[in-house]
Amino acid sequence: MDIGRAIVDRVAELGRHSDSPDHYTRMYLTPAHRAASRRIAQWMEEAGMQVHVDAVGSVIGRYEGAAPRGRGTSRHQMTKTLLLGSHFDSVRNGGKYDGVLGILVPIACVAELARRGERLPVAVQVAAFADEEGARFHTSFLASRALIGRFERAALERRDNDGISLADAMATAGLDPAKVDAARIDPASLAAYVEVHIEQGPVLLDGGHALGVVTSIAAGLRHTVRVKGEAGHAGTVPMPRRRDALAAAAEMVLAVEKRCGAAGGLVGTVGILRVKNGSSNVIPGEVEFTIDIRAADGETHLAAQKDVFDACEAIARRRGVAVEHTKTHEVRAVPCASWLQDAIAASIERTVGGAAPRLPSGAGHDAMVLAEVTGVGMMFVRCGAGGVSHNPAETVSAGDAGAAAAALLDLLRNFRPR
Amino acid sequence: MDIGRAIVDRVAELGRHSDSPDHYTRMYLTPAHRAASRRIAQWMEEAGMQVHVDAVGSVIGRYEGAAPRGRGTSRHQMTKTLLLGSHFDSVRNGGKYDGVLGILVPIACVAELARRGERLPVAVQVAAFADEEGARFHTSFLASRALIGRFERAALERRDNDGISLADAMATAGLDPAKVDAARIDPASLAAYVEVHIEQGPVLLDGGHALGVVTSIAAGLRHTVRVKGEAGHAGTVPMPRRRDALAAAAEMVLAVEKRCGAAGGLVGTVGILRVKNGSSNVIPGEVEFTIDIRAADGETHLAAQKDVFDACEAIARRRGVAVEHTKTHEVRAVPCASWLQDAIAASIERTVGGAAPRLPSGAGHDAMVLAEVTGVGMMFVRCGAGGVSHNPAETVSAGDAGAAAAALLDLLRNFRPR
Repeated sequence: MDIGRAIVDRVAELGRHSDSPDHYTRMYLTPAHRAASRRIAQWMEEAGMQVHVDAVGSVIGRYEGAAPRGRGTSRHQMTKTLLLGSHFDSVRNGGKYDGVLGILVPIACVAELARRGERLPVAVQVAAFADEEGARFHTSFLASRALIGRFERAALERRDNDGISLADAMATAGLDPAKVDAARIDPASLAAYVEVHIEQGPVLLDGGHALGVVTSIAAGLRHTVRVKGEAGHAGTVPMPRRRDALAAAAEMVLAVEKRCGAAGGLVGTVGILRVKNGSSNVIPGEVEFTIDIRAADGETHLAAQKDVFDACEAIARRRGVAVEHTKTHEVRAVPCASWLQDAIAASIERTVGGAAPRLPSGAGHDAMVLAEVTGVGMMFVRCGAGGVSHNPAETVSAGDAGAAAAALLDLLRNFRPR
Repeated sequence: MDIGRAIVDRVAELGRHSDSPDHYTRMYLTPAHRAASRRIAQWMEEAGMQVHVDAVGSVIGRYEGAAPRGRGTSRHQMTKTLLLGSHFDSVRNGGKYDGVLGILVPIACVAELARRGERLPVAVQVAAFADEEGARFHTSFLASRALIGRFERAALERRDNDGISLADAMATAGLDPAKVDAARIDPASLAAYVEVHIEQGPVLLDGGHALGVVTSIAAGLRHTVRVKGEAGHAGTVPMPRRRDALAAAAEMVLAVEKRCGAAGGLVGTVGILRVKNGSSNVIPGEVEFTIDIRAADGETHLAAQKDVFDACEAIARRRGVAVEHTKTHEVRAVPCASWLQDAIAASIERTVGGAAPRLPSGAGHDAMVLAEVTGVGMMFVRCGAGGVSHNPAETVSAGDAGAAAAALLDLLRNFRPR
């Protein structure tokens, strides 16, 4: 059977393990999540891996490498582990490929190696991370953090919408919250981490590419901006006399759009905007909005951020309104290792053909966490349906899933730890 | 005692008849409203007027004119009535001068005539309208409509926030809802209607004028505009690929501001703007906002309206978003009678000095209703505190109140029906 078709069939099957009968939502440690975990473990075993569930519920499958040549090999010559993986939890009413694709493509590749009896100079370990989105307990990268030994214990007290604590949910699922440290793997054993992921945007789709190489995971910054002008009667205050907070905010929204449209790999979004005590016949006196800016590198990000707030202040001055902004969220840019970028590009070029496109990732991924302890690489797979993600319409074609498997298999066969 | 000071003292006293101990709110037929009504009636009586409360609770005081000369005067030679007035209900947490000034200035003028024993060729009638703002039952110009015989009976079924119907509130206040028609006065008896009102804007304040002549009451139009783009991940959709409903709406907000700033007597306001399902990390897919456009004349209004919606559609086309708008409210422009404008201007010039400024009214007033049956004129009084109104900070100085009384008294003394 065609590998790509088999992968998308498995995505569909796994998607049926949902917290809701109406749509796809799979949150950490729910019954659907545990059923999905068992199915993933079964597929890993069928692919010839040794499988265990770690202390936070991630499913880890290991396919040993070729035995080191000769006796008395020193610790430094020990077989290293190439870690592949992604997550199997979802956002509410999400897309079935997000995360899951990066588990099922590696399993398919290992199955192919096992079928042919091929062993590599590295062990291949596939990590199906139990929680990345954190939709249930408002956590971030819980499972990959546990894997690198940086689980935040304070998170155990967090409660879901039903008042169940993370610690209780773990206990119910047969996990011991006191033993989360056991999930840690030795960073020295890692050769690298490679994550296959649906792009979640339209860049590959628009460019006509099945696969792409991620250059970095974007630096991200969120601010809340508050504009204060002067409320007034919509009928009686002449236009030149107004200090309209919404008109000022509208100019700022366009300034964000203009500045962030001026450079590739840079995006800026005003996602929330509220007029305080808004009434159709009152000139807005106060407006609050969010700005989310992301860039492939910290320098571009910093420059955009400065220009955007300079522009907001100039607009406020010219219009006689007050503006203030508060940072609510910040993530530094995480570059993908250049040697892994090159290796992934070479594999795409050998299997798909043409020059492999390189693009930044605007969304966060487990690779950001693994980058704290090892080199990381990411391969993006074309996102169908106009590039929508975190949405039931999210899709990947069987052909593109097959291309991803072919490129990853090529990467594995040619992989040499540095 | 200084007339201006006496007027602002009465404004302050009447302001204490409030539905709330914390701020000034006086809604139709509440205990505070009825107490204010009794106080106004008392002041009218003290000013030498014959007073009655009409079928909807308005307080009407009449100061007879000079007896017609000779016997056998025909109906046409009958003494006509110059109606002066405004309202004594308020918006929630409103300003104490709004409406009330247009009752207390005329009462002060009549008191002055009575004190000197002066009779005019016309009878002077002061109408203290019981309900103009309509804050309690969501009505508009209820009392002046009743006065011209155009009360809308369907309004009797409307209920306030406590579920009390307008009909029940009237009955509780000793008014018979079946007899609202009795409030009607014969339009043929009217020589004109003149309303003194706080400007509710900063034009006189900025120009350094105590008083102004209203040229017309603006045409008004309210629309709800809905912009539909495409929601998407704030990190993964490149800027040129976006169809951001908020960025499009921001351009439209600025288009309203620009077009309505291009002509005098024209104002345009976006008072409400909502991002549907807004989230800081999601590109807005749908935005709804209101547009309120007002102009001194219908032609300016129509041209502005057309240009604004043309601009919105051009913005939508260019950005690949959909836009639709729904009219929610429309009022035609009501011009003030030119002979009354000239008479009011002459009185201001004789009493205050200088050329009397003329300006349109962006807000609606009872004069709009009276214009359906007689010529109307309006005199605006400078609004202190930066021109704010419908706000506790709303204020008129004693000096300006005195100037208004002097100008109105001059108008009365020189008034000749046409």
